[in-house]
Amino acid sequence: MIEDLKKFPAFNTCSDSFFNRMERDKRRLTFGRRQLILLADDPADRFYLIDRGWVKLFRETIEGTEAIIDILNTGQLFGDTALFHDDSYPFSAEAAEPCTLISLPLGPLREEITENSIFAMSMLTTMARYRRQQDLELEHRTLQNAPQRIGCFLLRLTNQDMAGPAIIDLPYDKTLVASRLGMKPETFSRALAKLKQDTSIEVRGSSIEITDVERLERYACSACSSEFPCKDGSPSVA
Amino acid sequence: MIEDLKKFPAFNTCSDSFFNRMERDKRRLTFGRRQLILLADDPADRFYLIDRGWVKLFRETIEGTEAIIDILNTGQLFGDTALFHDDSYPFSAEAAEPCTLISLPLGPLREEITENSIFAMSMLTTMARYRRQQDLELEHRTLQNAPQRIGCFLLRLTNQDMAGPAIIDLPYDKTLVASRLGMKPETFSRALAKLKQDTSIEVRGSSIEITDVERLERYACSACSSEFPCKDGSPSVA
Repeated sequence: MIEDLKKFPAFNTCSDSFFNRMERDKRRLTFGRRQLILLADDPADRFYLIDRGWVKLFRETIEGTEAIIDILNTGQLFGDTALFHDDSYPFSAEAAEPCTLISLPLGPLREEITENSIFAMSMLTTMARYRRQQDLELEHRTLQNAPQRIGCFLLRLTNQDMAGPAIIDLPYDKTLVASRLGMKPETFSRALAKLKQDTSIEVRGSSIEITDVERLERYACSACSSEFPCKDGSPSVA
Repeated sequence: MIEDLKKFPAFNTCSDSFFNRMERDKRRLTFGRRQLILLADDPADRFYLIDRGWVKLFRETIEGTEAIIDILNTGQLFGDTALFHDDSYPFSAEAAEPCTLISLPLGPLREEITENSIFAMSMLTTMARYRRQQDLELEHRTLQNAPQRIGCFLLRLTNQDMAGPAIIDLPYDKTLVASRLGMKPETFSRALAKLKQDTSIEVRGSSIEITDVERLERYACSACSSEFPCKDGSPSVA
């Protein structure tokens, strides 16, 4: 488990004592579909690594409408930024599909940042990359059409160094993917049909086969100010 | 000038030697309307404090379409995050209106981060706040209607601790504000007319008078998952 944490580029300068403390205080948790993991603004002393499954990050407006911030998959982290929000979570999280999480303590993370300046710099770099990704997402809401935005979402889930075909598993609930992209379910369905027609991707339930990654790239990335492969494409700290 | 840098909460733990180096190597620059300040992906060794005027941050797609990332005003910083993007700027910048900038060296900023862990933590907190702000902006693109989004934009430019009336100066070019909000100019005009009707704000050229901040807040913030005053409302590091 802790090996998975070491795989994050941001963590590769962390001390042995940091990893030992993570190892000693890790907890394995399982959640059923739609089960709440944590609540926005709750006091935070743990962060989470997704061992398996899909997690939805969201907030609710005063009127009770849900805003989806992200949908994360195996190998991604969340809750760590509570350290920079007065030790409270900036979002709520629930299991989008059944999932297994590794819960880890925030204390040693804070200490590593203050004691290891190279790690602090890595965290800043990770945050800056995420910020650039959000700038791009805001840009795409204006410049890309709906099929291009789905194409972009799919490309971010593929291994971008590979040309040719690729297979992606989406969370089962497509309504969730639609909300993540800021689309109504009916817009999402129409846009997915158009994307299939234009780029010959194949959809089988929650599995999507991209027959030609380069073709999808030409289709989606022409309306993007960044180059492909996306510099920020790797699983990021959330 | 350097006094203005000290006003940023993120900088209040910086060492005297940091501020001395900034003072010694600062340069005052003026730019005319539409003049280019820096280009995306160019090597970076300076960052900028806006002494007076409006600056547009943007990127261009392969097809040549412009995506506006932000429009900044007096007292805001930009270019500092180049430190976390392999020392190159993540966006282009040009003067939206005539402006005066203070150009400052990035080197001492990098050294302060690696030598002063409290400052590194402050930078992380600032970045996290900006990230939360971007999450909100993405949320608003889906949940708020166009008049509410203009209302939200105006509220962010006011002193949010004051109730009652407030006066705001926008950059002269309204097309720019429309692009910043991801709206076509005609959508922006219609939405501004609706907002005037619904919240009795008054528009005189580039000056906007909010007759009742609380009324505008009830109008715009009902479709937002954050509370008012916006926790991230203060001029942020860009």
